[in-house]
Amino acid sequence: MQLQLMTWPDVQAYLGRRTDIIIPIGSTEQHGPTGLVGTDALTAEAVARGLGEAVGAIVGPTLSVGMAHHHLAFTGTITLRPTTLIALVKDVVASLRRHGFRQVLFVNGHGGNIATVNVAFQELYAEASLAGEGAGVRCALVNWWDGSRVPALCREFYAGQDGSHATASEIAVTWALFPETAREGTAHEPPVAPSGKGWTDAGEYRRNYPDGRIGSNPGLATIEQGGRLLAAAVEDMAEKHAAFLKAGE
Amino acid sequence: MQLQLMTWPDVQAYLGRRTDIIIPIGSTEQHGPTGLVGTDALTAEAVARGLGEAVGAIVGPTLSVGMAHHHLAFTGTITLRPTTLIALVKDVVASLRRHGFRQVLFVNGHGGNIATVNVAFQELYAEASLAGEGAGVRCALVNWWDGSRVPALCREFYAGQDGSHATASEIAVTWALFPETAREGTAHEPPVAPSGKGWTDAGEYRRNYPDGRIGSNPGLATIEQGGRLLAAAVEDMAEKHAAFLKAGE
Amino acid sequence: MQLQLMTWPDVQAYLGRRTDIIIPIGSTEQHGPTGLVGTDALTAEAVARGLGEAVGAIVGPTLSVGMAHHHLAFTGTITLRPTTLIALVKDVVASLRRHGFRQVLFVNGHGGNIATVNVAFQELYAEASLAGEGAGVRCALVNWWDGSRVPALCREFYAGQDGSHATASEIAVTWALFPETAREGTAHEPPVAPSGKGWTDAGEYRRNYPDGRIGSNPGLATIEQGGRLLAAAVEDMAEKHAAFLKAGE
Amino acid sequence: MQLQLMTWPDVQAYLGRRTDIIIPIGSTEQHGPTGLVGTDALTAEAVARGLGEAVGAIVGPTLSVGMAHHHLAFTGTITLRPTTLIALVKDVVASLRRHGFRQVLFVNGHGGNIATVNVAFQELYAEASLAGEGAGVRCALVNWWDGSRVPALCREFYAGQDGSHATASEIAVTWALFPETAREGTAHEPPVAPSGKGWTDAGEYRRNYPDGRIGSNPGLATIEQGGRLLAAAVEDMAEKHAAFLKAGE
Amino acid sequence: MQLQLMTWPDVQAYLGRRTDIIIPIGSTEQHGPTGLVGTDALTAEAVARGLGEAVGAIVGPTLSVGMAHHHLAFTGTITLRPTTLIALVKDVVASLRRHGFRQVLFVNGHGGNIATVNVAFQELYAEASLAGEGAGVRCALVNWWDGSRVPALCREFYAGQDGSHATASEIAVTWALFPETAREGTAHEPPVAPSGKGWTDAGEYRRNYPDGRIGSNPGLATIEQGGRLLAAAVEDMAEKHAAFLKAGE
Amino acid sequence: MQLQLMTWPDVQAYLGRRTDIIIPIGSTEQHGPTGLVGTDALTAEAVARGLGEAVGAIVGPTLSVGMAHHHLAFTGTITLRPTTLIALVKDVVASLRRHGFRQVLFVNGHGGNIATVNVAFQELYAEASLAGEGAGVRCALVNWWDGSRVPALCREFYAGQDGSHATASEIAVTWALFPETAREGTAHEPPVAPSGKGWTDAGEYRRNYPDGRIGSNPGLATIEQGGRLLAAAVEDMAEKHAAFLKAGE
Ligand code: NI
Ligand code: NI
Ligand code: NI
Ligand code: NI
Ligand code: NI
Ligand code: NI
Repeated sequence: MQLQLMTWPDVQAYLGRRTDIIIPIGSTEQHGPTGLVGTDALTAEAVARGLGEAVGAIVGPTLSVGMAHHHLAFTGTITLRPTTLIALVKDVVASLRRHGFRQVLFVNGHGGNIATVNVAFQELYAEASLAGEGAGVRCALVNWWDGSRVPALCREFYAGQDGSHATASEIAVTWALFPETAREGTAHEPPVAPSGKGWTDAGEYRRNYPDGRIGSNPGLATIEQGGRLLAAAVEDMAEKHAAFLKAGE
Repeated sequence: MQLQLMTWPDVQAYLGRRTDIIIPIGSTEQHGPTGLVGTDALTAEAVARGLGEAVGAIVGPTLSVGMAHHHLAFTGTITLRPTTLIALVKDVVASLRRHGFRQVLFVNGHGGNIATVNVAFQELYAEASLAGEGAGVRCALVNWWDGSRVPALCREFYAGQDGSHATASEIAVTWALFPETAREGTAHEPPVAPSGKGWTDAGEYRRNYPDGRIGSNPGLATIEQGGRLLAAAVEDMAEKHAAFLKAGE
Repeated sequence: MQLQLMTWPDVQAYLGRRTDIIIPIGSTEQHGPTGLVGTDALTAEAVARGLGEAVGAIVGPTLSVGMAHHHLAFTGTITLRPTTLIALVKDVVASLRRHGFRQVLFVNGHGGNIATVNVAFQELYAEASLAGEGAGVRCALVNWWDGSRVPALCREFYAGQDGSHATASEIAVTWALFPETAREGTAHEPPVAPSGKGWTDAGEYRRNYPDGRIGSNPGLATIEQGGRLLAAAVEDMAEKHAAFLKAGE
Repeated sequence: MQLQLMTWPDVQAYLGRRTDIIIPIGSTEQHGPTGLVGTDALTAEAVARGLGEAVGAIVGPTLSVGMAHHHLAFTGTITLRPTTLIALVKDVVASLRRHGFRQVLFVNGHGGNIATVNVAFQELYAEASLAGEGAGVRCALVNWWDGSRVPALCREFYAGQDGSHATASEIAVTWALFPETAREGTAHEPPVAPSGKGWTDAGEYRRNYPDGRIGSNPGLATIEQGGRLLAAAVEDMAEKHAAFLKAGE
Repeated sequence: MQLQLMTWPDVQAYLGRRTDIIIPIGSTEQHGPTGLVGTDALTAEAVARGLGEAVGAIVGPTLSVGMAHHHLAFTGTITLRPTTLIALVKDVVASLRRHGFRQVLFVNGHGGNIATVNVAFQELYAEASLAGEGAGVRCALVNWWDGSRVPALCREFYAGQDGSHATASEIAVTWALFPETAREGTAHEPPVAPSGKGWTDAGEYRRNYPDGRIGSNPGLATIEQGGRLLAAAVEDMAEKHAAFLKAGE
Repeated sequence: MQLQLMTWPDVQAYLGRRTDIIIPIGSTEQHGPTGLVGTDALTAEAVARGLGEAVGAIVGPTLSVGMAHHHLAFTGTITLRPTTLIALVKDVVASLRRHGFRQVLFVNGHGGNIATVNVAFQELYAEASLAGEGAGVRCALVNWWDGSRVPALCREFYAGQDGSHATASEIAVTWALFPETAREGTAHEPPVAPSGKGWTDAGEYRRNYPDGRIGSNPGLATIEQGGRLLAAAVEDMAEKHAAFLKAGE
């Protein structure tokens, strides 16, 4: 169920039955020579919608722009400052809380969002704690690749060449979603991107990772893998979702 | 061309040829008993993508949550505070400017965003003006219904019953996009919603407009009209786009 | 009745009878070679005070500095960032609300303030809506030139040469208020300033409008016209005021 | 010379000769049973304009709303939050700096503004210091009653009954400016208001000072005193102004 | 070397040799029935100072108040909102950067600070990235318990009863530092505190963890252990420090 | 009693008896060629702890970083922007208020903090006043040198050569606290530093005060004086503390 495709009486009826909602959050940033700029938003959205189907929960609109300043030296990247993203997430959750949503699960597609989104939850909770009131809502962020099935498939498919940015797996998922964008078998140079160095600003990131990839070999990705990864991610997330609902009981 | 479906080298190549970009911005808010919560985002996205095709321009990610606090008394509405939306738009434009985009056109699907998004542009320009520098980017917001063709069709289709919120026309466009959500011919009570009263907070809005609509009769909307409206909007926006590019010459 | 010239028991007595107040808001910015820097504040103040007399309402202090960054390339202009003006207007309204004022009408003298001041109202309302509370106050902004009488006089006096910045009409009003500043019949070069181009930052504004005027011929302005325009504006605003009070019933 | 009554070429010519400017800042707040709500703004404006005449300096627009939350339990008071006033003062000074003003002297009419306005200067300077740049402008705040002549007159006129809020002297000045508002000889009960207690919020202020006055006996004020106080204040401020200009040499 | 105990010429001389600095950051929050409110600040400070001695680096002032809203239902806890802590950390780092410090290592004593402090780094870096500039400084946060030696000792000393808040180990360290506060062998009820539940606001935290501890048995802590843990932490941190300096090469 | 060395049940017991607390606040900034960077924090902390002992009150954690941008041209100085310090102080006080602390006395070691910390109190009070609520807490800031005994000793010890920054007296106190840092009898050039000039940014401060001192001769300071000054300051502060508690009755 997509919130965007429901009427308000539909949503009201849902809230009579249950009070959880899923929000996809991604990023708009470079993903190497062959990965899509929208990878993190597209994958988060697809996994979140699959999860919504699987567990019967409403899926809200995708927050497609995240915290990605370190990719700004590559054309096309859009970032929010962390404090902007905090304000954004707070307002989204505050809106949902007003209606009676009590569990808000963010399905995330971008590692760079994790700290900031969690801090946004704390900012909201801190206001309640300082006022001596209850927060009125429980939030969590889960990364779509953080279950058991997806890592297992990655090991099977990529044998240590999945990497940590512009990963073979996330690129495979986008190709499964948008086959017309697939560039299966494209040779990268070097095939496996460098890894292991940190960064501060965007300039340093690019100096360390000249084509944008970290540790990945997207030349291994296929549309077929993408479909299997997506299905696995939905199953993984269904477990996370169940654990999240249980955590607040 | 969707930014989300391009690689960063694709974007860089584009910037060698031209420097404009289109950003769809909508809202997530009630649209009456039969309109979709995502109407303003879905319509803005569809029109913006059509425009992108028509003029060969890149279309960025859809900003699906806008300034919609007055709809919060209807379940499912999500709002940003105006100051949050200002920060969001500023960061998006600042990111694009860094890459060399010089014309950013927001295609808007929600009247409640207009003032705030324009103020965001001014905030960005004001920083430049106070620093004695050039802004480095020109921004504009256009509403997809603000050309000549769409209003003409609305008069033809709805004869004064299009209204100003949860309009027959915007609902028709969403049904053309998502036919499975169509509720053609649903009777509303009253058929034409009340209109003419202002509002302050969400509670007052709902007291004035009990089912969410303003002045509209969505019972007149059809999928077929939606297709024609969408095509007309794209043509209208192409004119706006040309005027926007010309304005900065 | 000027708030500034009343005692607090006077104000309290007034609130026992009615709950509306008028706030003049202007700007401090260049108005071409012969117009006063304070034009927008001086005119707003004069019209607001005339309106206060006409309808028996309290008129608060004039907010003389507005959103005018685009005029900063001309010496003497002072601007607030939009977000500063939002905070300012919010605090003013919040103060008035605390006392029981329920209708706050801003009489505005500067086009550049319109979006920002309206966004300030929305910021205040949004806080209420998110909290599920009533806003407790209704706000509106009206421009003193936005009635029927003033445009009619402008057509009569200036026949299309009134313009849109450093207008003949606003300059005439200031000369009626401060005859010692009048420069009637000063020739401008060109007599009618250019118009039709937009702007981003202050530098671009000045490149497009080298002496500061847009589309106006202040050489046509006279003190006598100013007096008639002022009287007409007060009558126009009295209609707006009545409509504003009625809107909330 | 009032900035508001000059044209931009006038201001530019002035900046060819000297780079200082005077900004009046006051407050809109209760001043006891007989004092005007605008007292602090009206007196600051009158003294600043007198000073401008005396020393040939430009006087900018009056900032009529200040930091006065503690008076909010008395009807008619308007306050800015301190952080709003900081933003306001920063933007005003930043605008003036852009034009080449290098000395900005705030002539203040309200004790409650002192700390906040000085902090605003520090906020501006701190940005420069952190950037390793020069501030580009020197700011100071002086209270119009802080010279030698005004205190001497107060001792002569009021012999210890001038007080510290709704003072006999400031009320006398407003009556000299607006004789129609004078309420000479009004008996207060008690004649001399209480004093000596601090306060936190507005409610506590009112509990301590039930009619708004602190330590004053406005029943002693006369129009004639007001004229003499105003003249003395201008002379006092001329000394402060000279010292301010000298401080930066 | 403590920054607080150096003169500015001392610091300048140091910067001629090396450009790294250590900042201890902790929290002021409840630590169960027998743990000190200052535990997280006291331990971070002691470890940081030991580290400074070990590696010859300057240690800055301890930031003793952190992000601890979830402990507010226990008396004595002080928290910053996350956004306040972000601003604080940003200003501290910006100050150090101005002097030429290029590596700033925060030695942390409180799990609740981790996300927020890292987001502060990103906020600083994001400004640089958006401006197309270098950040000019590299920051990292390390928790004093995150090496190899401390966890090994914890297993030896507490065999799974160290817990995750008000841990036996951190309490032991504070007792080693302030033996007069030691309450060795105090019985807790239950001996091992509950664990495994999350929380949102402070009220929920207290409902889940009634005496403040999570999973710990401070009854096992001794002064003697504290001394050994502290020494181990310094050795662990020296490894982290070396890795941090190497990361930026 | 140090808050940092108490358990939460200790604090709760204290609040059953009394509701006041002391917070030391200082700065991290240059103090001339022989004064410690931490002088203002170290002295404030020592005086506050002495005061706490003397009057039996809890002393909170030291806020060691203050508003010191004007010292940034000297290596080692750390500053907060004023608005950051306002946020910090507000959160600290809001946390304490939540527990039932009703009187918060800041013992200050740095002149540059005074305005900003007082503005922070007003920001907190203003929120209450605008909401029509009580502030719930009373705050004050006292400088440790602002009693009668310390100035008398300074006159005795330094005869007009104490100065106003990097004062002989404050340096003496730090030497009494950390004798290993003492540099008694160091000759300064000139012996008495210049004084009398203001400043804006850090660069101007350094041009006016090349070695950092203002008007002081730290060559006169001795450890022995420091001990007497510290004892005198504690006595002075005990008087201030009593007056503070009485002020709210
Ligand atoms: Ni990715
Ligand atoms: Ni709509
Ligand atoms: Ni104008
Ligand atoms: Ni006054
Ligand atoms: Ni701890
Ligand atoms: Ni000092």
